[in-house]
Amino acid sequence: MSFAVYQPPQVQKSYPVLYFLSGLTCTEENFIVKANALKYAAEYGLILVAPDTSPRNAGIPGENDNWDFGTGAGFYVDATLAPWSNYYNMYSYIVEELPNLIAANFSIDINKQGIFGHSMGGHGALVCAIRNPNKFKSVSAFAPIVAPMQCTWGTKAFTGYLGEDNQNWRLYDASELVRKHKYHGHILIDQGTDDKFIQEQLKPEIFEQACQEVNQPLTLRYQDGYDHSYYFISSFIEDHIKHHVKELGV
Amino acid sequence: MSFAVYQPPQVQKSYPVLYFLSGLTCTEENFIVKANALKYAAEYGLILVAPDTSPRNAGIPGENDNWDFGTGAGFYVDATLAPWSNYYNMYSYIVEELPNLIAANFSIDINKQGIFGHSMGGHGALVCAIRNPNKFKSVSAFAPIVAPMQCTWGTKAFTGYLGEDNQNWRLYDASELVRKHKYHGHILIDQGTDDKFIQEQLKPEIFEQACQEVNQPLTLRYQDGYDHSYYFISSFIEDHIKHHVKELGV
Repeated sequence: MSFAVYQPPQVQKSYPVLYFLSGLTCTEENFIVKANALKYAAEYGLILVAPDTSPRNAGIPGENDNWDFGTGAGFYVDATLAPWSNYYNMYSYIVEELPNLIAANFSIDINKQGIFGHSMGGHGALVCAIRNPNKFKSVSAFAPIVAPMQCTWGTKAFTGYLGEDNQNWRLYDASELVRKHKYHGHILIDQGTDDKFIQEQLKPEIFEQACQEVNQPLTLRYQDGYDHSYYFISSFIEDHIKHHVKELGV
Repeated sequence: MSFAVYQPPQVQKSYPVLYFLSGLTCTEENFIVKANALKYAAEYGLILVAPDTSPRNAGIPGENDNWDFGTGAGFYVDATLAPWSNYYNMYSYIVEELPNLIAANFSIDINKQGIFGHSMGGHGALVCAIRNPNKFKSVSAFAPIVAPMQCTWGTKAFTGYLGEDNQNWRLYDASELVRKHKYHGHILIDQGTDDKFIQEQLKPEIFEQACQEVNQPLTLRYQDGYDHSYYFISSFIEDHIKHHVKELGV
């Protein structure tokens, strides 16, 4: 597994860490190159970690046949169906293996770790944070897939990785999870109004409704005229980093 | 010829324009995606124009054989040797054709146009500004090739495009030009100290010496630990945009 790490210039005893999960088709490079996050990580003395979005070259027949399933589309779940289950365990990777690897190799403040992401990665960030609030003390997302059980990207991935019994799917659906596990912190979501995936795949109103039902603090901002691209992310990355800085008490 | 344009969100009667010239192997995309300039162009209401670095698919035999000559390496000169002279006229393109195209299609303030660039594009920006101070009212550069007549990138390109008579080369060497045509404004150059091309190709001290000889206002900043990449550019782009804003009186 590949991942990118940004280390800030400050000399500190330990560093807060933000994990950024990218969306479909991305690698560990997109966020670091395109999101304009480094400037703010430098300013606040944060380590940034950007993992790849799936295993690659696992040797599974057909793994490269779809842009929204298999390579580049791990969907941050632990697959239960063979042959994917032998390799595609992105949930455990993000929640356990990667943080352990970072902690073993960098001087991090283990009590100041946040997570955010974009699209499929926004889904991953919300799921990982809501299920692991003691590990990820802050969370935000850009144009996340908030209800994967109710969109074709999600149902295709969940069917392929988890099988047709959708009881298992609920472990990876932020809108389902937040109803049962209210998150201790404030959640920030930005969503562009000109995002072509908003109606069919992203459906932010479903998560907003779920949060309202359980009084989950949420700021959902609709950004007028913005699309689904990294230009959108780079336009609001400063706000997100400041959100994590505040929530983590950096 | 391809170029990228960023239009700021402000509604203005007319917009200042900054042209950014990229380096070897780049296209019109690198600067827009990687430099983190859009945020500051938005803040100050500037149009950004990022042209490609050469003609492409001109059909010249061998045009794609070298990364530092031909495709992606126009060097911002008007070639005088056939077959390049039929296509490779990047100097005229940057100085005449492109600004005319921009003026015809956008509401620009023709008296507030600046130019900057990186590496080969820093060379281009300096040459275009020094030779056309009434057109380009401000100039800056990241790690520019300031003395192409004294480095192998420059001599290879000039020999190929202009022939072996190096009297013609002086029209495209910033360190030669500034001695004869002092620029009306202040020139800003940033140069990373860990840039692997600094000694053999970039040689900032030659331009610094030339500027001192004619009392040309120059700020040459050596940035400790920075390399030749767009990470370097994105780290100091804010300063450069502010430099142009100040020099243009935006």
